[in-house]
Amino acid sequence: MMAKIDPGRFFEDYAIGQVIEHAVPRTVSGGERALYHALYPARHALYSSDLFAQSCGLPAAPIDDLAAFHVVFGKTVPDVSLNAVANLGYAEGRWLKPVWPGDTLRSTSEVIGLKQNSNGKTGVVWVRTRGLNQRDEVVLEYCRWVMVRKRDISAPAPETVVPDLKTVLDPADLTVPQGLDFTGYDFTLAGEPHRMADYEVGETIDHVDGVTIEEAEHMMATRLWQNTAKVHFDLTFRPEGRLIYGGHVISMARALSFNGLANAQMIVGLNGGAHANPCFAGDTVKAWSEVLDKAETGAPGVGAIRLRLVATTGGAPFALRGEDGKYGPDVLLDLDYWALMPL
Amino acid sequence: MMAKIDPGRFFEDYAIGQVIEHAVPRTVSGGERALYHALYPARHALYSSDLFAQSCGLPAAPIDDLAAFHVVFGKTVPDVSLNAVANLGYAEGRWLKPVWPGDTLRSTSEVIGLKQNSNGKTGVVWVRTRGLNQRDEVVLEYCRWVMVRKRDISAPAPETVVPDLKTVLDPADLTVPQGLDFTGYDFTLAGEPHRMADYEVGETIDHVDGVTIEEAEHMMATRLWQNTAKVHFDLTFRPEGRLIYGGHVISMARALSFNGLANAQMIVGLNGGAHANPCFAGDTVKAWSEVLDKAETGAPGVGAIRLRLVATTGGAPFALRGEDGKYGPDVLLDLDYWALMPL
Amino acid sequence: MMAKIDPGRFFEDYAIGQVIEHAVPRTVSGGERALYHALYPARHALYSSDLFAQSCGLPAAPIDDLAAFHVVFGKTVPDVSLNAVANLGYAEGRWLKPVWPGDTLRSTSEVIGLKQNSNGKTGVVWVRTRGLNQRDEVVLEYCRWVMVRKRDISAPAPETVVPDLKTVLDPADLTVPQGLDFTGYDFTLAGEPHRMADYEVGETIDHVDGVTIEEAEHMMATRLWQNTAKVHFDLTFRPEGRLIYGGHVISMARALSFNGLANAQMIVGLNGGAHANPCFAGDTVKAWSEVLDKAETGAPGVGAIRLRLVATTGGAPFALRGEDGKYGPDVLLDLDYWALMPL
Repeated sequence: MMAKIDPGRFFEDYAIGQVIEHAVPRTVSGGERALYHALYPARHALYSSDLFAQSCGLPAAPIDDLAAFHVVFGKTVPDVSLNAVANLGYAEGRWLKPVWPGDTLRSTSEVIGLKQNSNGKTGVVWVRTRGLNQRDEVVLEYCRWVMVRKRDISAPAPETVVPDLKTVLDPADLTVPQGLDFTGYDFTLAGEPHRMADYEVGETIDHVDGVTIEEAEHMMATRLWQNTAKVHFDLTFRPEGRLIYGGHVISMARALSFNGLANAQMIVGLNGGAHANPCFAGDTVKAWSEVLDKAETGAPGVGAIRLRLVATTGGAPFALRGEDGKYGPDVLLDLDYWALMPL
Repeated sequence: MMAKIDPGRFFEDYAIGQVIEHAVPRTVSGGERALYHALYPARHALYSSDLFAQSCGLPAAPIDDLAAFHVVFGKTVPDVSLNAVANLGYAEGRWLKPVWPGDTLRSTSEVIGLKQNSNGKTGVVWVRTRGLNQRDEVVLEYCRWVMVRKRDISAPAPETVVPDLKTVLDPADLTVPQGLDFTGYDFTLAGEPHRMADYEVGETIDHVDGVTIEEAEHMMATRLWQNTAKVHFDLTFRPEGRLIYGGHVISMARALSFNGLANAQMIVGLNGGAHANPCFAGDTVKAWSEVLDKAETGAPGVGAIRLRLVATTGGAPFALRGEDGKYGPDVLLDLDYWALMPL
Repeated sequence: MMAKIDPGRFFEDYAIGQVIEHAVPRTVSGGERALYHALYPARHALYSSDLFAQSCGLPAAPIDDLAAFHVVFGKTVPDVSLNAVANLGYAEGRWLKPVWPGDTLRSTSEVIGLKQNSNGKTGVVWVRTRGLNQRDEVVLEYCRWVMVRKRDISAPAPETVVPDLKTVLDPADLTVPQGLDFTGYDFTLAGEPHRMADYEVGETIDHVDGVTIEEAEHMMATRLWQNTAKVHFDLTFRPEGRLIYGGHVISMARALSFNGLANAQMIVGLNGGAHANPCFAGDTVKAWSEVLDKAETGAPGVGAIRLRLVATTGGAPFALRGEDGKYGPDVLLDLDYWALMPL
């Protein structure tokens, strides 16, 4: 009799070039959008209004970029991070096609790096994950690396392969959705008058608003992405408090950043990100941003702005690291991304 | 470098005749309906079943009237009530067109009244807000007045204009949705046998049921309407407790009133309303109603019933005001509205 | 003046052969599906992906079987269980047609059994409930019996009729959805490699995962099914804690059983079920299953597996009853059902 519960992959179960087809494809609808907007204070007009999206050259409002990311990411959890001890980083995240209500998403991951740790008990696994729609088009992709336990400490170490990942995507690496045109952009309906020219590299923005997080909300969000890692749900497994899915903090911070960045409409690139400290129910999440770079895209009226998005549980805005170079205890998230904004 | 965070309008920023186009239009879908029905015990059959709505002459079940109201209202918050110290009243609310899944709503407000308070620090602003769909049809409108802080106390007072608002809409002011016909109304499927003839002016109804409110629910509701006033979300901003959006109480009370008013199907007029006391998570909301008036509408089988809807946190039903004429401490809401009911 | 609040039916209000048309029909959409997947860790691929469902011969992904059950069940509450003192059992539950987004469901119940208890104060009522879609097709049916109070203790006892209900449905009683074909079943996308041949009668599976339940979640779920029994919502009515709707526990346990039974795709029969102990917010729900039987169905590649699904609040897995033959204090649910699985 075969065991029915999958214990998940351990470090020695990964091999360079291995492609994992993740389970449970998902058809998304207006239901996912409504829930996303109920769980986060999401207000970017392009994702809220079909008419606004059409005025920007798209056929309709897509599903929020981060909702698409979470759907793709959630599927990888049973295969990539069930035995992970740490989520180490993201790189080379690219949104390649909008996701529309009615689309069906599935995920695959290719193992692109392996490095056993010197303690012999764990190793680092790098994967490149792709989300595909029902036409087998890649809608988004990203690299992620996690520290994974070995099943058998005496198993031999694999050959070390550390992938050469870009620390920042070049603007030329970004894909602007087909048809996108910001030349007739309605700043009034979008909610703020600031175009890309109004932002300066180095500028910091305190997004002011905060949300005190509740257990029911982060669990609903995490389940919606079919991410079932038990640390998020089972208080008997983690009596010290259910750990909130890092993606919940990303979406909360991004939504809060509307206040000051309402025109940073579409996320197209994820350069990197760190979950600096764990988040728990009862924490009040706030956010601030820093403008890191600006670029043209070639699409009409469409600029790309590179932003640092920091989520905190309070503390002074714009304080990121202590004198020791480590993230301050109030910092939850440090994310580096590219968004599209009217020039 | 332009400041990126909008501090909101102060009293001196309003002028008579000014029209404010509110940001972030919204396309609604079955997702908004499902969430509305998960957040409130909403059961009015016309909003629950396409078939029932069709049997009443409509093409399909509309989005709940109060959901449409909240979508329109939510967009006004950043422009009208960010610096408001009190929400003083509503009048002349009229639902003019049903809202269907797929519709895109936006809001505009016209300033119709201004009166500086004698303290010189605040003033009252009256606006008439309209919700428009993708065909620029007005789906609903209402007047609302709020007390707003001045930015600069030395700014001169504007000329006082107090609009002449009806305290009660005349039945002739009400709009019956095109095609509505209650002559073949199915009282069994609707849930109660009472037609308008069965209600008497002066009659009071204790709706019996109660719901103890949770933080996650009111925040999800309020976000869904893209109302992001921080008092509802940020416990560090209001350590004494997050204030629940008044509209959450309205929807909860209206849904509870199904038990006794299942056939008060469509809300078409809002005569007035007061949020008598603030509501907090942990409160148990109950409701009672009083029949204030009845009228014919001219549409086949369709009557209009004027109702007082009172939400409380307990106390004896039908007790509204103390001997001092003030609302009792248990009263949350006193709403005066017109609904359509089979004759 | 007619009383407007329906006190519900008492034991003497039921008669053999009586058919009750339950109120408030419901049109379901992608919104209900998204909420179902946000409230429960539901991952069965056939209900998550239109493409997966199409690869199994269906036109699209149906609404989850238990969501359809809850919609049908919820409508019966005001007519069947408002004055019930106990929910005694289920039998002969059959899913006959998938429910698709856009379908409108209503419910009817036929009284098939009556037996006054010897105390003269209560009696047992058996009903057969059917859920019908907009084409008047029966989508599911089940029998349920409840203990109901008498309004008037001196009312005469009705003739005792105890229906002859099957304790287990025969595989021939089960209906396989038209077109269902598991010969091209994609075990990778479904999430587990186990086909029916890999399960043995008597085998037990600990589903490992757990979810600590929150008030906001169970209330949202219960409202979504338009089940408004006040014990679930009103803490002033039940200061010792809001009782969680038994169906919430069923759905939670079924969703948790994905881990080990990912290929038990469609629920087609409910043989019986007992809510052994009440569930409250703060409880951590876990689940285990036992394979009770296996059968062929005649449909290509489609087997039927009979499963016992037990929800607990902890304790040792596979412990069901104490030495006294009674359910252990940790057991919430003991459900006996048939599901369709690839052969």
